[in-house]
Amino acid sequence: VDRFEPNLRIPGPTALPPSVRTAGGRQMINHRGPEFAAMLERILTGMKPFFGTTSDVAMITTAGSGGLEAAVVNTMSPGDKVVGVSIGSFGDRFAKIAGIYGADVTKLDAEWGYAAAADEVRETVRATPGVKAVLLTHNETSTGVMNPIADLAAAVRAEAPDALILVDSVSGLGAVPFEMDDWGVDIVVTGSQKAWMSAPGLAMIAASPRAWAAMEQATMPRFYLDLRAHRDAAANGQTPFTPAIAVVYQVDEGLRLMGEEGAPAIFARHEACAAAARAGLSALGFQLFADPAAASKTVTAAWVPEDLDWKAFNGEVKRRGVVLAGGQGKLTGKIFRLGHLGSVTIEEILGAISTLEFASLASGRPVTPGAAVAAAQVAALEAYGVAVPAAARA
Amino acid sequence: VDRFEPNLRIPGPTALPPSVRTAGGRQMINHRGPEFAAMLERILTGMKPFFGTTSDVAMITTAGSGGLEAAVVNTMSPGDKVVGVSIGSFGDRFAKIAGIYGADVTKLDAEWGYAAAADEVRETVRATPGVKAVLLTHNETSTGVMNPIADLAAAVRAEAPDALILVDSVSGLGAVPFEMDDWGVDIVVTGSQKAWMSAPGLAMIAASPRAWAAMEQATMPRFYLDLRAHRDAAANGQTPFTPAIAVVYQVDEGLRLMGEEGAPAIFARHEACAAAARAGLSALGFQLFADPAAASKTVTAAWVPEDLDWKAFNGEVKRRGVVLAGGQGKLTGKIFRLGHLGSVTIEEILGAISTLEFASLASGRPVTPGAAVAAAQVAALEAYGVAVPAAARA
Repeated sequence: VDRFEPNLRIPGPTALPPSVRTAGGRQMINHRGPEFAAMLERILTGMKPFFGTTSDVAMITTAGSGGLEAAVVNTMSPGDKVVGVSIGSFGDRFAKIAGIYGADVTKLDAEWGYAAAADEVRETVRATPGVKAVLLTHNETSTGVMNPIADLAAAVRAEAPDALILVDSVSGLGAVPFEMDDWGVDIVVTGSQKAWMSAPGLAMIAASPRAWAAMEQATMPRFYLDLRAHRDAAANGQTPFTPAIAVVYQVDEGLRLMGEEGAPAIFARHEACAAAARAGLSALGFQLFADPAAASKTVTAAWVPEDLDWKAFNGEVKRRGVVLAGGQGKLTGKIFRLGHLGSVTIEEILGAISTLEFASLASGRPVTPGAAVAAAQVAALEAYGVAVPAAARA
Repeated sequence: VDRFEPNLRIPGPTALPPSVRTAGGRQMINHRGPEFAAMLERILTGMKPFFGTTSDVAMITTAGSGGLEAAVVNTMSPGDKVVGVSIGSFGDRFAKIAGIYGADVTKLDAEWGYAAAADEVRETVRATPGVKAVLLTHNETSTGVMNPIADLAAAVRAEAPDALILVDSVSGLGAVPFEMDDWGVDIVVTGSQKAWMSAPGLAMIAASPRAWAAMEQATMPRFYLDLRAHRDAAANGQTPFTPAIAVVYQVDEGLRLMGEEGAPAIFARHEACAAAARAGLSALGFQLFADPAAASKTVTAAWVPEDLDWKAFNGEVKRRGVVLAGGQGKLTGKIFRLGHLGSVTIEEILGAISTLEFASLASGRPVTPGAAVAAAQVAALEAYGVAVPAAARA
């Protein structure tokens, strides 16, 4: 039995609000019946404004990576030229999937910690005549960097008006504005365990009319991930295969809560929590990993100081109830990550920062009690547009 | 708000026991942490006796159909000769998946309602020299037929000692005995929402040493469903992609309950419930769809009588709290199905039969009050080996 509920500060799965937890514990229903049909309709319709689209959305029982695979295999044929723009582990994964299915992938790698540069994307697309698709990561969970998708999509369009633009927004969508239709994006993938405040298990995928049309020509093999089957079943209030009903309950409830809060408030809360996390970690002496100009609104990465015994420090932090994430891939052991997405509150970020401060003091690091919390408070207030007296910032 | 909990008598998802429901409502944890690792280890180890194997088991966040796709794409290469033995919708699906990925599929179709005949399987395999794999369905959910896998596997082995035998046991495993290693079966797929008493969302897949070796040669493309990635991550207490944690909680709890009850008691309960369902439906005047010699232990299908207004009748049954499943594919509207797997109790089957009896009386069908329930009771008792006095059977 747990003595307390940890402050889960990993970049997904995110903590579940109480009513979402309750939803996950509901009894099963017939997934071919009217109650499920109503729920599916609420979800697929309710997600559209967050995608910024009027096109059809599909829901598949899979992790986000299965959603990325769906984006690839539904729209391409072996031999298709693809530009894979990567700014971290998940960008590498997206490109890898395309290669596994026989696409002719040109990688464009940004230095980890930085966003992709629109002019470099434009140059690479220009140097790839006949490019079928460009793969972009909206929020790169492994580095805590958020790409400017509107700018990158415009760069692609300038050189290749017909190229499909496929975007991994597993850890971004729902937490920040996204305008798929306005930006000319063709496929966007998101996952239930991120901004949607639910357990993992469902990927939601929106496709533009151009992408839906491309699926009729694409010859990469697919069955379970065939988006057309999901769209057609959804038109009858069903999924083509038995869905993760417990998670469907949760996403339905998560979306209800998001509707109550409203998108502007959700986005502002993520901005404020991100600002607080960056300011607090900086004040604790941690060097942030991401270029400040491209810092993610949903996860903040920081370097592990060379003089810090991370395992001991993180153990102390965890004993105090704060669960952080380590680095991934080549960043394993070199960075740590603090998630702030989904149900996150300012209180949880201040709590995490104060616990890191406490652990820093306990381990003899040169920090001033309360200073990091103060910095986080001020940053959050300023993000909310609240003027903080200069005296309070000393 | 629901006034009562329905008697969910569809062949999956099955009703969740109270503690499994509670497990589904738990807060999220870090899926890269020790608590998750311990849970994954319990599940993958705890499932082995039900598979009847000492080989590695993999767990993937997907519906059962994704598990079937994993069985195909991990073991085969385009052009491989495959025999797809089908006795219903799910056998057709298994063969269809192999074809989509480029296998050279020979179908062997049994008449729906019957098991596959071992001599026909043997003949088809003999007529397919160099066959790479044979696809079998253990329990065909669409028809309520259970195949004799031991006999069919022996028939395959007699003609093609090196062929891989891939078995869909999504709706069979855990409810009835299965001896994968003894029978020489190479891949077995099951799903969380069936005998495991959990929500849908996880497929568990066991592979023989021969199947694991075949994966190194197989060239069908796969990423999300690559079983080797799942096996390798599991060796480190993880999944390669974020798992459906809420469902993992449930399967962990479901397996704990199954351990308490014990496999012999679980199998006997399914035998008794199946016998009660068949006897009760027959006594109500419904003609059973499946060959009695091959009747499933987890789902019973019956013809919709030509003189019955099924929609009205089923509506009455549903209002009384019993949820049945309709037919699938070409059997839509022609049969109905009553599921008895997972958490099912004799009480639930007797309750369903008595409600069908009640609805039959209400709709003027020629039934004797209590007679169908009596038949179901006697059948269940006899399945349990309890002698019923002849007088009680009158």
